[in-house]
Amino acid sequence: MRFATLEGGSPDGRLHLVSRDNTRCTPATAVQSLRLLMEDWDTFAPALEKQYAALNAGGGVPFDPERALAPLPRAWQWLDGSAYDSHGALMQKVFGLDPNPPGRPLMYQGMSDRFLGATQDVPLPSEEDGIDFEGEFGVICDHVPMGSTPAEAAARIRLVVQINDWSLRAIAPVEMKTGFGWVQAKPACAVAPVALTPDELGAAWRDARVDLPLRVELNAEPFGNAEGYPMSYGFDQLLAHAARSRDLVAGTVLGSGTVSNENFREVGSSCLAERRAIELLDEGAPRTPYMGFGDRVFMECRDRDHAPLFGAIDQQVINGGRT
Amino acid sequence: MRFATLEGGSPDGRLHLVSRDNTRCTPATAVQSLRLLMEDWDTFAPALEKQYAALNAGGGVPFDPERALAPLPRAWQWLDGSAYDSHGALMQKVFGLDPNPPGRPLMYQGMSDRFLGATQDVPLPSEEDGIDFEGEFGVICDHVPMGSTPAEAAARIRLVVQINDWSLRAIAPVEMKTGFGWVQAKPACAVAPVALTPDELGAAWRDARVDLPLRVELNAEPFGNAEGYPMSYGFDQLLAHAARSRDLVAGTVLGSGTVSNENFREVGSSCLAERRAIELLDEGAPRTPYMGFGDRVFMECRDRDHAPLFGAIDQQVINGGRT
Repeated sequence: MRFATLEGGSPDGRLHLVSRDNTRCTPATAVQSLRLLMEDWDTFAPALEKQYAALNAGGGVPFDPERALAPLPRAWQWLDGSAYDSHGALMQKVFGLDPNPPGRPLMYQGMSDRFLGATQDVPLPSEEDGIDFEGEFGVICDHVPMGSTPAEAAARIRLVVQINDWSLRAIAPVEMKTGFGWVQAKPACAVAPVALTPDELGAAWRDARVDLPLRVELNAEPFGNAEGYPMSYGFDQLLAHAARSRDLVAGTVLGSGTVSNENFREVGSSCLAERRAIELLDEGAPRTPYMGFGDRVFMECRDRDHAPLFGAIDQQVINGGRT
Repeated sequence: MRFATLEGGSPDGRLHLVSRDNTRCTPATAVQSLRLLMEDWDTFAPALEKQYAALNAGGGVPFDPERALAPLPRAWQWLDGSAYDSHGALMQKVFGLDPNPPGRPLMYQGMSDRFLGATQDVPLPSEEDGIDFEGEFGVICDHVPMGSTPAEAAARIRLVVQINDWSLRAIAPVEMKTGFGWVQAKPACAVAPVALTPDELGAAWRDARVDLPLRVELNAEPFGNAEGYPMSYGFDQLLAHAARSRDLVAGTVLGSGTVSNENFREVGSSCLAERRAIELLDEGAPRTPYMGFGDRVFMECRDRDHAPLFGAIDQQVINGGRT
């Protein structure tokens, strides 16, 4: 199934089913919002499957992804990993960080009360903060009991999403140094318009990873096209890590961290910090600036036949400071 | 006004008004849950004020705090400061951490999808994790726009609460070393049964701080009685810090960090890690063990005349591991 959320009366928005080609949609009849669907997936899923089959046979109205909110405009929990080793290694070099602890995925808890829509402007307080994007994949899970194994957690993955994790790089290392993690450095993320059940990815859903590239453009120039598969920990392992000492609430969103590949000089990057780190290594100094107000980032993952999946993120940073 | 949440149909529970002496309660007629009240405070508050006045004049049913859920059983955001310098200094000594960055409060984002009731058992996976409590105060705020000043943020504080921030000390330093903050080391917090509007504290609500002691007992033995006032940053400043690059969603819960005073040898502590740090300094090694299954912690803040305010937290740790 494919889901999108449009405006509709509540901060959770109105859940729609989207046709397999992302061209048509129809309001879900069984349940009002994706939040409520996540909180009782097994009850609602059979009726939604029927409605999805009917939609794919015809009907519905044109789906305009630019009108879509984030699939979950707010969630009870957002946990973000950093599962691409090549990204971690570059960040450690640039920020002078310790290497990752062996055998433990990196993960932080971020703000979940608001996820921006894919084409929504991004109001940020200052261009001095080192404004950066991070192209990621993510999953939305059903309830995962404390102590679940990776295999058990994998069975609780209900949806796959594509995320832009906005980051403020001038603040990030200051907050990391405290050991408390990020608050100011991690404002609201954005999410691509369409959330997919894993079966929609076919063979590209492999080992609890998205085996497809994420195309990134900065101000309409190619920036990156890294593959999603090479996560050192799959979403199953990341979920099990998160569930070590807590039940994961139904509707938890868990991210992969910035998509990154070892051959970054060929495929490019999914965030500016990584490109700047490469420039620092190769040229002695970062050359690419962070984003300014008016700059745009575009991110999209399509399947190998170029068919649409999550839809595109296409956002502009704007001045959200107080005048 | 005084609020408590009892069981009732939804994960958000059923909001009740509690009489000023904490002995009687009545279901709020204007709104079903504290979450919904927080999302539209100005609409509902006038009717609730009237109902609260009527309840204080008589009526209602006996209030049984042991039946109370957390005032907000789930929230969109939980941010926790560490605003008591004496606690921070002790933790730095014991865990070998860098000193706090000057001029910046310490803060992390924690899990908000679940807050335990004040007498609910605390299932945790292992006694090897260094199970610890942290006695804190907190506030629940209305929407705080990005870039708000401390004075503006202070005007958005709607409720004051008393919190037990459960912590796993064997995991905490491992997660801190990554710079990503805590996931496994911070399971669900518990919250005392009664949430108060700041006026209920009278003169004890001073400079956006709770000017009252927090009494802590471990297995029915006195453990601490530290004063809440000496925060190096008030809740107004902590909220403004959090709102640097994000709007704070209505219903955000923000904590003070472990209540701690410079004269800790006289007043005791509000967490085991701090007592163990003092033992390490004074005796060369920590002597007090972390908690085991079956251990209990009690925390209560009353006013200077010993009248009840938030009610008591009284919790037992139980084996939540998988057998």
